[in-house]
Amino acid sequence: MTAAPLFNRLALIGTGLIGSSIARAARAQGAARSIVATARSAATRRRVAELGFAEIAAHLQAGAIVSDVGSVKGSVLRDMGAHIPAGVHFIPAHPVAGTEYSGPDAGFAELFVNRWCILTPPDNADPAAVERLAAFWQALGANVETMTAEHHDLVLGITSHLPHLIAYTIVGTADELSQVTRSEVLKFSAGGFRDFTRIAASDPTMWRDVFLANKDAVLEMLGRFNEDISELTRAIRRGDGDALFDHFTRTRAIRQGIVAIGQDSPAPDFGRPHPDLPPEPLARPYAANDE
Amino acid sequence: MTAAPLFNRLALIGTGLIGSSIARAARAQGAARSIVATARSAATRRRVAELGFAEIAAHLQAGAIVSDVGSVKGSVLRDMGAHIPAGVHFIPAHPVAGTEYSGPDAGFAELFVNRWCILTPPDNADPAAVERLAAFWQALGANVETMTAEHHDLVLGITSHLPHLIAYTIVGTADELSQVTRSEVLKFSAGGFRDFTRIAASDPTMWRDVFLANKDAVLEMLGRFNEDISELTRAIRRGDGDALFDHFTRTRAIRQGIVAIGQDSPAPDFGRPHPDLPPEPLARPYAANDE
Repeated sequence: MTAAPLFNRLALIGTGLIGSSIARAARAQGAARSIVATARSAATRRRVAELGFAEIAAHLQAGAIVSDVGSVKGSVLRDMGAHIPAGVHFIPAHPVAGTEYSGPDAGFAELFVNRWCILTPPDNADPAAVERLAAFWQALGANVETMTAEHHDLVLGITSHLPHLIAYTIVGTADELSQVTRSEVLKFSAGGFRDFTRIAASDPTMWRDVFLANKDAVLEMLGRFNEDISELTRAIRRGDGDALFDHFTRTRAIRQGIVAIGQDSPAPDFGRPHPDLPPEPLARPYAANDE
Repeated sequence: MTAAPLFNRLALIGTGLIGSSIARAARAQGAARSIVATARSAATRRRVAELGFAEIAAHLQAGAIVSDVGSVKGSVLRDMGAHIPAGVHFIPAHPVAGTEYSGPDAGFAELFVNRWCILTPPDNADPAAVERLAAFWQALGANVETMTAEHHDLVLGITSHLPHLIAYTIVGTADELSQVTRSEVLKFSAGGFRDFTRIAASDPTMWRDVFLANKDAVLEMLGRFNEDISELTRAIRRGDGDALFDHFTRTRAIRQGIVAIGQDSPAPDFGRPHPDLPPEPLARPYAANDE
């Protein structure tokens, strides 16, 4: 729990999974004295009023910080930067957290705990404003890292955008096969396919926009991926078991690294909780994040 | 619980994740009067003796059923079929269930509950023996389906083998990038990459053998995947948002189908249990599988 509110007023534009999780987490942690919000559709605005975590409003005062939570940062700096009034700070942010669900009811206060939030301040950003926004995300449970928008788009191109594009592709490929029925694909999905469908169920509007906004980095990562899959394809065609084994052994270490730093659970995933393992604690306590 | 043991003696050759789960489940359900097992390495054999679910032995009597649990069925029919003595039934099987862990300590009795087990009996198989093996898998909690080995290899090519190949590829691609450090890949893996690493941590020896044994079907599925990813790449390059949106919308329905038939949990996956959801029940009771 933070001692005093970091912000007098937190104004959210957009209150889906991420926005409503921010509202819930900020309220739980007392990170803002008042929370106001608006959304594009009247239905969402009504639902936000019912959930009771915000009133509807939108004003910008001198000294205010404008931020966002989008997945691509170069384009938001370019497109929004020009519209920010003098005296107002613009500091884009990207909390690397989410689920395959959307909308204000999908949000929950613990979404950001032990996840990373990346800030991409422009060159001339006010350091005090950057620090204040970082403190806000830390209060919500996140770890904060700062980098340029360009580097962010490259990093997320490989860790998020390319995985989504590939998952969307293979799920579509499977659905178009004439030799294998959709019912067979569903039944036998536990063999690996299931994990791709979870990613390929993400919000289509958001992901269309991500690929259009981060076109250059995504195309570069796709080029590298294609080179690598051609190499493994050649190994299979030639029956080169050693090349396959060496590649498959190398990738294991990366998984172990992700589990070691707490970005995934070590519990085996077989579509439901493992019977022999106790339920996991809900990550580390909030206090431990204020480092 | 089954009334009388389906088999007098269950002999397991290989006692890793799958073999030791079969032993545990068969013991829990009373599906075999005695369980015997052997393994390639002395250490595994010792561990199996410590776990106490089997003694070490291997004999084949007339009337015995020889089966396996491998991921490719055409090659096992071809390679093993010739070595089965007269009077012994050879009925390959593939329980479509697993985790990213290996070895006798990774197994658990509930692994097969509500999962599918595919039997691929040869043309001349004894129907009574096929039925008995089906009853055995049902006793362990699985649903059973029968198909030709050739069709099995095509179905698993798309639902399991291609997803694994792609996951292995992208995890390798990420690790070789010069612009993005491994530490960045690990930190920001919650954006989608994490789910691929889980698959790419599967046993390298087993997966090398799967790709070599199911070469033709995997190469065919890879060809179709490549066509589809080229189409999406072209849509990104041309900025064709409608084509992207249409594709991404189509893939959502498949995910909903998988959740509807109980092959995955509807709970959001964010690397740890969702705080607002009660723990899931451990699938449906065994009795319900005997249909």
